[in-house]
Amino acid sequence: MLSRFKRCCICFAFVRMIVFYHVKLHAIVYFYHKIISVAITSIDIIGTGNLAFNLAPALEQAGFVVNRIYGRNAQAARELAGRLYQAAVQSSLDFSDSLSNLFILAIADDAIEEVSRELILPDKAVVAHTSGSKSLSVLGYTASPHIGVLYPLQTFSKVKKTGFRDVPILIEGDNKYTRKILTTVAGRLSRQVLAADSRQRRIIHLAAVLAANFTNALLHQADQVLQQAGSDLDILAPLMAETLQKSFALGPQQAQTGPAVRGDLQVLETHLEMLAGKPQLQETYRLLSQYILDEFYEEAGD
Amino acid sequence: MLSRFKRCCICFAFVRMIVFYHVKLHAIVYFYHKIISVAITSIDIIGTGNLAFNLAPALEQAGFVVNRIYGRNAQAARELAGRLYQAAVQSSLDFSDSLSNLFILAIADDAIEEVSRELILPDKAVVAHTSGSKSLSVLGYTASPHIGVLYPLQTFSKVKKTGFRDVPILIEGDNKYTRKILTTVAGRLSRQVLAADSRQRRIIHLAAVLAANFTNALLHQADQVLQQAGSDLDILAPLMAETLQKSFALGPQQAQTGPAVRGDLQVLETHLEMLAGKPQLQETYRLLSQYILDEFYEEAGD
Repeated sequence: MLSRFKRCCICFAFVRMIVFYHVKLHAIVYFYHKIISVAITSIDIIGTGNLAFNLAPALEQAGFVVNRIYGRNAQAARELAGRLYQAAVQSSLDFSDSLSNLFILAIADDAIEEVSRELILPDKAVVAHTSGSKSLSVLGYTASPHIGVLYPLQTFSKVKKTGFRDVPILIEGDNKYTRKILTTVAGRLSRQVLAADSRQRRIIHLAAVLAANFTNALLHQADQVLQQAGSDLDILAPLMAETLQKSFALGPQQAQTGPAVRGDLQVLETHLEMLAGKPQLQETYRLLSQYILDEFYEEAGD
Repeated sequence: MLSRFKRCCICFAFVRMIVFYHVKLHAIVYFYHKIISVAITSIDIIGTGNLAFNLAPALEQAGFVVNRIYGRNAQAARELAGRLYQAAVQSSLDFSDSLSNLFILAIADDAIEEVSRELILPDKAVVAHTSGSKSLSVLGYTASPHIGVLYPLQTFSKVKKTGFRDVPILIEGDNKYTRKILTTVAGRLSRQVLAADSRQRRIIHLAAVLAANFTNALLHQADQVLQQAGSDLDILAPLMAETLQKSFALGPQQAQTGPAVRGDLQVLETHLEMLAGKPQLQETYRLLSQYILDEFYEEAGD
């Protein structure tokens, strides 16, 4: 058996070893983060749409320098630059003398390919688009070896400032370095950064359009209908809040209510008659009610 | 000129008069409320669906006695009565010996007319249905001289307790007494009690179905789509919350985003191809995108 002293020595050596490696590991992580942080302090934005107007200020607030803004619409570029601390307006797609090392394309999906062909970037720059539906490969035309995607799953408008903190940001990159850079940038904007390849992102984007864009279109239709009763959209606010809350809490299958899920055909008929003067709205009603009948009716019973 | 004393006397008399009438007025209002409150301390509920399971406990919490529960489904009636302080299960539609003076029909729209034909009520009882789509006149078959509607504009499920505090409750009554009773009851449940005739209520109900029931159906469709990416509905929660918030803050016209409002036909085509295996979903996508193109595209431009 070992003496008490020897056991103490072994214990001490063991603890020292753990502390040593712990500190060393932390130092490595610290310097690694330092390098990454240094590598992406400066960003240029190409585009002046709804996303650019929300993303550029959010990047500044997250501690990055937004260096240059490029936009086909010079007026919009000046307006966006004016909202930032020190961003300059760039008038061409030649960024070869830019000090930035991340270039974010926040432009219409259809324009990405064309712009990326014309884009001239500094060596080793990372370039990323922000589209939900376009694959990573549309950036293959850029001269950059580092192409990626940073797609915030959110709806943005120029007239309304939208935070990024809870927004899922989907990241893709053609190499480890690019993924790391984009993950770090996204991680300073949001608590929810996820890896998604082009196929996954395209599917998630389609789901987002189905759910969010179409819900807004339905609210527009509802608003038109409400005017006939001398009422306005606000009357639906508590109902819509509860609908979402319930749908996410119970799942849409359990949360479905209304005449279709009850199989209340008399009401469905009356509603279709009420919409007789609005064929597009009537067709929407018919189609979605049929979907509810097909998907939920048998299971709900009641 | 009047002496100082006389002026004081006049002032005093004037103040006394105001105080007197003020007190008298308050007393009248107080006793009036007292009478109304006394008149509706006791309520019977006919129906054991989603609404009944939320309304009956809410009425109790608001200080009313829920006396009896009637339901075709005896098991459900027992379950609901079991959740209340002292409610008994009633096995027939003969309520002639009930001590209640308000009878609320919380049943399927199609059943209201039939049930109201069979219903036997005590003298002077008020009977109200809770349907958004049925007119007041379907209660014309009851023997009661006091018929009305109390329609809470909300989605209810048995498995989720839903508060009434912010729910708009639409009231209709065929006479002043009925309207008063229903307004008082609704006013104890909710802060938002509104008068609406049968036509207005039917329109508001249609708008509610378009907005809320169909949004839930869209979320179900989105959920199906997301499964293909190995993702689930939760990823859309921040987007949906922001969509609603924006739609109500800016109005749906200003809040519309997505490929259709940008006129991004390439993306629309890709999405339609992705939905090729799901014709019903594809048709929903086509129809709502066309609606957005027709209603918003020219105006939004960009």
